[in-house]
Amino acid sequence: MAREITAFSNPLIKRVRSLREKRHRREEGMFLAEGLRILTEADEAGHLPRYLFHSKDSADHPLVQRLSARIEAANDGSEVILTSRDILQKLSGKDNAQTVIGVYPDLACSLDSIDRTSAPLWMVAQSMRDPGNLGTILRTGDATGAGGLILIDDCVDPFSVEAVRASMGALFTQKIVQTRWEDFIHWLRQGPGMLIGTSLNTDFDYQQPHYTAPSFLLVGNESRGLPAEYEQQCDVLVKIPMMGKADSLNAAVATAVMAYEIINQWRRK
Amino acid sequence: MAREITAFSNPLIKRVRSLREKRHRREEGMFLAEGLRILTEADEAGHLPRYLFHSKDSADHPLVQRLSARIEAANDGSEVILTSRDILQKLSGKDNAQTVIGVYPDLACSLDSIDRTSAPLWMVAQSMRDPGNLGTILRTGDATGAGGLILIDDCVDPFSVEAVRASMGALFTQKIVQTRWEDFIHWLRQGPGMLIGTSLNTDFDYQQPHYTAPSFLLVGNESRGLPAEYEQQCDVLVKIPMMGKADSLNAAVATAVMAYEIINQWRRK
Repeated sequence: MAREITAFSNPLIKRVRSLREKRHRREEGMFLAEGLRILTEADEAGHLPRYLFHSKDSADHPLVQRLSARIEAANDGSEVILTSRDILQKLSGKDNAQTVIGVYPDLACSLDSIDRTSAPLWMVAQSMRDPGNLGTILRTGDATGAGGLILIDDCVDPFSVEAVRASMGALFTQKIVQTRWEDFIHWLRQGPGMLIGTSLNTDFDYQQPHYTAPSFLLVGNESRGLPAEYEQQCDVLVKIPMMGKADSLNAAVATAVMAYEIINQWRRK
Repeated sequence: MAREITAFSNPLIKRVRSLREKRHRREEGMFLAEGLRILTEADEAGHLPRYLFHSKDSADHPLVQRLSARIEAANDGSEVILTSRDILQKLSGKDNAQTVIGVYPDLACSLDSIDRTSAPLWMVAQSMRDPGNLGTILRTGDATGAGGLILIDDCVDPFSVEAVRASMGALFTQKIVQTRWEDFIHWLRQGPGMLIGTSLNTDFDYQQPHYTAPSFLLVGNESRGLPAEYEQQCDVLVKIPMMGKADSLNAAVATAVMAYEIINQWRRK
């Protein structure tokens, strides 16, 4: 049976609402995901929410019923909570709130827990600041069969509501690591792996190299690109050709164009 | 000499601030662009602002001085306006406002004014709702040598502050048309042009067809994709392969992956 919460002052509502801030996500070790599509993706990737909030008008939706049944069957303390549209709106912070919201345990994992041979491609983002870009890269990672996203230095929080939304649930299919450059390079060089950097500081066309698995696709900050010393440590530094006046691509777009070149080479075999 | 405006109540400040709303952009036939990078791109693409607002602390910036000099030399009634950071913030609506803001005349043009043979590639977006996606597609269009973006049906306004920002100035290098499907198809079929649709409703791999110029790359709404009747009118309908669980890509990402496949085929010759 779903518990019902109707009071804004309920302590759980306050706690869950606080998860819109990074500090509270850290403290609680949990994050928010909104919308049936994303929650269903999460379930299919093996992740059930710790708390599932839904409104009365979505109680009859088959996907809500399936999720609720699975949470109750898990019998691990997770809860289904029936609540009002107003409270969902408060939790979401959006005027046009989704009718379901899930609260999930933090998915971050350590470099050492990653099996690099479990996937041919890994995404690596350095000081990425835009949650939309980060979520979009997770989504592209899912589509291109990547194993996960390694976040270097001062990246935006991948568990922010905006990043989760932009990932469209791909967050749940990808390993997510947050680390520093030194630790990443140290780990990388202890096994196989081709580190591929995209840069404007080269004329080497991105279709020239022969990419080998596991490939680590490194993309830099939206405005500044990669630091020079990081570029020097790449096994190959390539440029996506640009014919325009602006000579730049959105960071998530550049990552996707690169990722498809890499997997297209492998698809040809 | 720059005119100085320090009063929030100044009628021009009120008018310019109103350009954050689509209705007022329509009425005034003008839109806002923010930041030196975008204003410089605009200048390089041959567009000077009708009004250039800048703060005292940016008055000595060489790019601001160059823009100001060019506006004064144009002697066409355009104005350079010195103002306060507070007013720039009010105009921009962002806490962290740029130090320069330009007001430009509307760039929309009609289908009939387009010379389709002036570029090998044209972007076509149908009912695209996200200004960030739309701006990103403009930026990709610039990078891939596209001639412009044709907006079909109920798209978000390409002259919104968010779309202009996401385009990073590429808006000024691309022709922009807003039209209906019937008018677009009628125009398209009166000359050469390969209409390429991306869809999940086909297994035809996007690397299979031989793309010919001028190519018209059609991308649909972020959640619904293209209407079936539009897909039927495409010369070729292709799918970008996806290996993941979510089976979807961000619309701007899919457009870029397609656009690079098309120009890569042409680059090989």
